[in-house]
Amino acid sequence: MNPVLVEAWRGDAVESEHLGSLAVIDADGAVAIALGDIDRPVFPRSAVKALQALPLVESDAADRLHLTDDELALACASHNGEAPHVRTAQGMLAKAGVDAGVLECGTHWPYLESWTREMAARGEKPTPLNNNCSGKHAGFVCVACALMGWKDSGIDLRQYVKGYVKPDHPVMREVSEALHSSTGFDLSRAPRGTDGCSIPTYGIPLRHLALGFARFGTGAGLRAGQARAARRLRQAVAKSPFMVGGTDRFDTLVMQRLGERVFCKVGAEGMYCAALPQRGLGVAIKMRDGNNSRAAEIVMATVIEALLPLDAEEAEFMRDFSDVTLKNWNGIEVGALRATPALRRALTLRA
Amino acid sequence: MNPVLVEAWRGDAVESEHLGSLAVIDADGAVAIALGDIDRPVFPRSAVKALQALPLVESDAADRLHLTDDELALACASHNGEAPHVRTAQGMLAKAGVDAGVLECGTHWPYLESWTREMAARGEKPTPLNNNCSGKHAGFVCVACALMGWKDSGIDLRQYVKGYVKPDHPVMREVSEALHSSTGFDLSRAPRGTDGCSIPTYGIPLRHLALGFARFGTGAGLRAGQARAARRLRQAVAKSPFMVGGTDRFDTLVMQRLGERVFCKVGAEGMYCAALPQRGLGVAIKMRDGNNSRAAEIVMATVIEALLPLDAEEAEFMRDFSDVTLKNWNGIEVGALRATPALRRALTLRA
Repeated sequence: MNPVLVEAWRGDAVESEHLGSLAVIDADGAVAIALGDIDRPVFPRSAVKALQALPLVESDAADRLHLTDDELALACASHNGEAPHVRTAQGMLAKAGVDAGVLECGTHWPYLESWTREMAARGEKPTPLNNNCSGKHAGFVCVACALMGWKDSGIDLRQYVKGYVKPDHPVMREVSEALHSSTGFDLSRAPRGTDGCSIPTYGIPLRHLALGFARFGTGAGLRAGQARAARRLRQAVAKSPFMVGGTDRFDTLVMQRLGERVFCKVGAEGMYCAALPQRGLGVAIKMRDGNNSRAAEIVMATVIEALLPLDAEEAEFMRDFSDVTLKNWNGIEVGALRATPALRRALTLRA
Repeated sequence: MNPVLVEAWRGDAVESEHLGSLAVIDADGAVAIALGDIDRPVFPRSAVKALQALPLVESDAADRLHLTDDELALACASHNGEAPHVRTAQGMLAKAGVDAGVLECGTHWPYLESWTREMAARGEKPTPLNNNCSGKHAGFVCVACALMGWKDSGIDLRQYVKGYVKPDHPVMREVSEALHSSTGFDLSRAPRGTDGCSIPTYGIPLRHLALGFARFGTGAGLRAGQARAARRLRQAVAKSPFMVGGTDRFDTLVMQRLGERVFCKVGAEGMYCAALPQRGLGVAIKMRDGNNSRAAEIVMATVIEALLPLDAEEAEFMRDFSDVTLKNWNGIEVGALRATPALRRALTLRA
């Protein structure tokens, strides 16, 4: 049974509740904290983009194409589709020798509503570059270069890239292999679904996702090239946290503040994964109802607050994300979103 | 324990689940269906706007101000903030002799994203008239006229209206009395919170909310003036269903199709209430996680499909709302939102 991890209060009453499960694991697979069912496969969605980006660096694509911190961070992102994200994705594709026409992620208006309104005010329409996954997909295209040949080799990369979202395409095989080798979970026995951006998503238990991120954070248990790739991706995101999310986004704000001490990444349907390298721990969260912004995010904030050594100001900074005041359209305080005492207790005991 | 009422599927696996409770009750208070806890007070939020609009008609405000079907429907609405909604709210205020400056609901961009983008493209900014509650608030202002005096009586209505959202204001006392007398629940012992639009919201058990809507649908158990008011509001919404929601909204689409046979109304945080006059039943739903669009809505669609006598085409129409195909940004089918077999079974047994 998954416990209540987050409560939404209105006045003096609990109005709504979010159930979920949480695994905190070290790189040897030892369980530090387990709440709820951590052995049922769940679709990690975008929470594993950093693991899916490992082949981009482990192959020589990142080196050969001179990918920058911004570009590597964007490959791990679910970004807001703001101008810097769009420009950076475009730059990655240009380095590979193609344009946005090869992207197979689909098109949606930017996640950031104020940016969507600004675009509308300018008479602009979204393109696949605004898709929150465009950086990940641009990264896949760069992996294709490493597998197939560089732009000056005379091959028609566009032909080779075509269909790169399909599970059996060589690019996606590399990506699945990275997911398998980092999490230690056999994907051939995993449930498979199609993600919002059309690539496969595999059902993986929280236990294995947390293990994957403990390894991602420490390098322990990864082959040497993968460990180096993990380190480079973590450093890139710490240096360019805006790229991984954008304006007002939890992942961006938290990593801007805490730097390399935490790598965290949201995924659709109430998913969150993180690495806490200092503690040697990986974290994986799944909210049963699929709620991200006000449930999974609050659990992640509470985990970071409890498990990471923070000074008083940093702890207060995190508290603003784990205990959130709700205001109405008139700016009047009407309630709060809070981690449950049960969650805080479980984290305190093991901290 | 609240059971799982809705499942979100991805591929062949359940990705997320929504727990909730459901009460279906007749006007005598006899329970037809109860799933989960129906005796715990829940904040009904906007799901009871129709009950809160009873004083608008039971007083002589609606008659004296010659309120139209559009205007009465808008008083029961959580609308999209589209042009017809804004125009209609403005017209109600003009009849009362005031303008939008008296509205205390606050301002937000329209619920309908495409309309928000259109406004942004025209360089417009939202006003309180775009607030989804502006029609309800315009109705409150009209009630103030009935309590205080009409625009030609020489009083300064703006002074009297001021603070109408406060629990102790004469207008809000009328509104609370209507909620109390229709649901039969003593609000003095209810938890009280502040709603998104700043009026009080009282914790009322689903059992009493469903009872209130059974009475709203049949008139049974209401005083004569209230029963007439309920009938007029139901007829107005059936004639002007666009006003109660707007483009692509469940309440609008369902009532456009089924007319006076159903009155249904969404509320924030996973609330839904409905009257099925033909069956003499009231319905109240609360999703534990507060999810509206993909959880409460699917439960309501399943209830209507199961409990209302429908022809084959109508049943198919409702099925599109109770069993929803999920597509990704490329239009590829990736999953479904579905009422659980447990919910369908409970409804079939009692249908």
